[in-house]
Amino acid sequence: MIKHLRSAGDLDAATATLILDTAAEMAALSGREVKKLPALRGRTVVNLFYEDSTRTRISFEAAAKRLSADVINFSAKGSSVSKGESLKDTALTLQAMGADAVVIRHSASGAPHRLSNWVDGSVVNAGDGTHEHPTQALLDAYTMRSRLGRLDGLKVAVVGDVLHSRVARSNVLLLSTLGAEVTLVGPPTLIPLDVAAALSKTTKVSYDLDSVLPDTDVVMMLRVQTERMQDSYFPSAREYSRRYGLDVTRMRKLPEHAIVMHPGPMNRGMEIAPEVADSPRSTIVEQVANGVSVRMAVLYLLLGGK
Amino acid sequence: MIKHLRSAGDLDAATATLILDTAAEMAALSGREVKKLPALRGRTVVNLFYEDSTRTRISFEAAAKRLSADVINFSAKGSSVSKGESLKDTALTLQAMGADAVVIRHSASGAPHRLSNWVDGSVVNAGDGTHEHPTQALLDAYTMRSRLGRLDGLKVAVVGDVLHSRVARSNVLLLSTLGAEVTLVGPPTLIPLDVAAALSKTTKVSYDLDSVLPDTDVVMMLRVQTERMQDSYFPSAREYSRRYGLDVTRMRKLPEHAIVMHPGPMNRGMEIAPEVADSPRSTIVEQVANGVSVRMAVLYLLLGGK
Amino acid sequence: MIKHLRSAGDLDAATATLILDTAAEMAALSGREVKKLPALRGRTVVNLFYEDSTRTRISFEAAAKRLSADVINFSAKGSSVSKGESLKDTALTLQAMGADAVVIRHSASGAPHRLSNWVDGSVVNAGDGTHEHPTQALLDAYTMRSRLGRLDGLKVAVVGDVLHSRVARSNVLLLSTLGAEVTLVGPPTLIPLDVAAALSKTTKVSYDLDSVLPDTDVVMMLRVQTERMQDSYFPSAREYSRRYGLDVTRMRKLPEHAIVMHPGPMNRGMEIAPEVADSPRSTIVEQVANGVSVRMAVLYLLLGGK
Repeated sequence: MIKHLRSAGDLDAATATLILDTAAEMAALSGREVKKLPALRGRTVVNLFYEDSTRTRISFEAAAKRLSADVINFSAKGSSVSKGESLKDTALTLQAMGADAVVIRHSASGAPHRLSNWVDGSVVNAGDGTHEHPTQALLDAYTMRSRLGRLDGLKVAVVGDVLHSRVARSNVLLLSTLGAEVTLVGPPTLIPLDVAAALSKTTKVSYDLDSVLPDTDVVMMLRVQTERMQDSYFPSAREYSRRYGLDVTRMRKLPEHAIVMHPGPMNRGMEIAPEVADSPRSTIVEQVANGVSVRMAVLYLLLGGK
Repeated sequence: MIKHLRSAGDLDAATATLILDTAAEMAALSGREVKKLPALRGRTVVNLFYEDSTRTRISFEAAAKRLSADVINFSAKGSSVSKGESLKDTALTLQAMGADAVVIRHSASGAPHRLSNWVDGSVVNAGDGTHEHPTQALLDAYTMRSRLGRLDGLKVAVVGDVLHSRVARSNVLLLSTLGAEVTLVGPPTLIPLDVAAALSKTTKVSYDLDSVLPDTDVVMMLRVQTERMQDSYFPSAREYSRRYGLDVTRMRKLPEHAIVMHPGPMNRGMEIAPEVADSPRSTIVEQVANGVSVRMAVLYLLLGGK
Repeated sequence: MIKHLRSAGDLDAATATLILDTAAEMAALSGREVKKLPALRGRTVVNLFYEDSTRTRISFEAAAKRLSADVINFSAKGSSVSKGESLKDTALTLQAMGADAVVIRHSASGAPHRLSNWVDGSVVNAGDGTHEHPTQALLDAYTMRSRLGRLDGLKVAVVGDVLHSRVARSNVLLLSTLGAEVTLVGPPTLIPLDVAAALSKTTKVSYDLDSVLPDTDVVMMLRVQTERMQDSYFPSAREYSRRYGLDVTRMRKLPEHAIVMHPGPMNRGMEIAPEVADSPRSTIVEQVANGVSVRMAVLYLLLGGK
């Protein structure tokens, strides 16, 4: 088993599949009867969050607690970080305190890689800049597999601001590893061809969502980060929504069995219409539930739970 | 047993009495010998706080932990709420993460009711706008019963800014259900007659605290929210304190056995004099202690603790 | 055993030694095999932090959780404190909620002493103003003893802004009690002679770091609080660093066996050079690890763990 999960690229197909299989066991075990597993009793998981992300922090916290680990939340706001402490010194501190795993969220791409040089424990990337968010990709893959029965050969359209999306980046890496065929869809300014090529040789690119939908098994809508919409390379909100938003009419172009995904939180009415978000095709709520199972599996496997 | 506690009006006399009786058992059990009860082991309680309220959050957290539940604190500040996520999507997230109970504090009246439409778990209102704060009413009733031996027929004066007080509202509802006689006391601008009538048919209103005290078993002083004192309907601080503040002279007008309550935090010197707050008649510290027992009982009963 | 740890002056030599010995047992027990001790199961430790200090809070939280205590974090920001609640009323609240120990960090010197008048539980000072930080002194003493084998007769130089340092103050008190010889080193404006004399009769003062180093077993660099460097009594950054910063050249003046300490977080390049901080003489990371063991010992002994 790998020691750290810093990138979806850390995972080969066998390891990724082991995580997904373990997550399925976790989901089965943590039903009503067995709510708490003793696997990580006495282990300490630190949530080191340099950016606010209540959803992701809570998901890791719930996962760790269901495995009976102790959880310590470290929000960098107002901490010695603001007194100028370096990531290295923070790392040495957590290391000295006996953290068995550090779950890190950071605005700087690559922070989890640097952190893993300085701690003995496992490092889990919970989102670094515009770089990666590998547990999101794992929970997305888990959701696809559980809805559609397989990943190999699955046609997945990832739609939106691919350029700045760590979710897209991790998904492309993991889905390629697991044999799915990814098409990146969005305005040309948000899908530079070199970026797409660098991610994976098999990834396709399209600027026309409508033409992609009829031959798609999974459409994954990326969140529009409204703060980026001020930028010159971003279409106007109306234009974006008209061309790349998923509304009911557009959803009907999908094959019968296709599913609609979104990492949340959604901008209802922007990249996804409320009726689509709440439709039976939507897996958005399942994705959240699967997130806890997948993070249980990751912590369990990285920490070598007995 | 009811599933949610959104309003003191959710409680009939039998259910309210069951909660108070259970709280008494909890208080007895969680003495020095048995500090921790296994009743909710493996259950997850989420504290979803859209407003800061350290006291209330800590009280629920202590209650849940004494019952061995896992507690996850979700402060809405800096969360995806600030990225525009709706209460509904937050609810679906918590639901998907497997929250067995959500304790919610919100500035909008009615938020707990809306929340209960979207989650499978139990919803407990920890204060919503100017609407209700039912566990405060329960701990107040518990305190009265434990000090004075009964609730039926008890004469309770609730003094202050009734118009904006969720504490007053929940107390009127619960005390009426349990047979106590409530008199609302304060400046006319802060006790609209239609509000009083709508709350309960048996509630009386008075604008003269001195005339009410001699025939009162319990005087409950409401907190003055100093930010409201800028408003035109609010008397000046000096005028308010002179007419409706409880000082030692005024306290002497109470019958020998009468008690003085306050939900905290107090403005010492404004609605209550320091000597009154610290007198043996004052139940203010007991109220806090009883709050933990009552919240243990509520969580235990709502979650169907074995 | 003492009930509170408000000042290093609360500790006589026997008690301090008992804490250090117990910390050594804790460190041995909480190795990989036994990560969690049941000693404080069912006890509640409240971290009452009026100042941000993530490092210290996390260290106490990790210590309490390894002893199986329940931990409740109370950050005074945005709490009823900001609504004007007094420390006394907050104390009565925590007391009523059944806190067995309150770990307090406060900007006002003496706050832990006042708090101990109002609660039944134990009070542990986690830093109060410019006054004291006794668990820091204990972990420093523990580190010296474990590196050098003894405390009695040890020559310790404490270097920097002694005037405003609670770390310096607690160290002088504890080290004097345990028989070490302390020399305070820094600019005259930051080491008033009356302050030094009041702390301990045996403490020496020097304004010349270079002349002190050759006869020193331990050099403890204090953190420069950069916000104080605006003040007129503070030398310029360049001047301070040149005269009192510990760089490699200066470190070579120490005896072979001597160690370098720093309470963290460091200003690398200001009071300590990066090469010194990362050298084998440096105990900075050990200090953090020892902090958890020492705080386990303090909580265990104060709470009379079985």
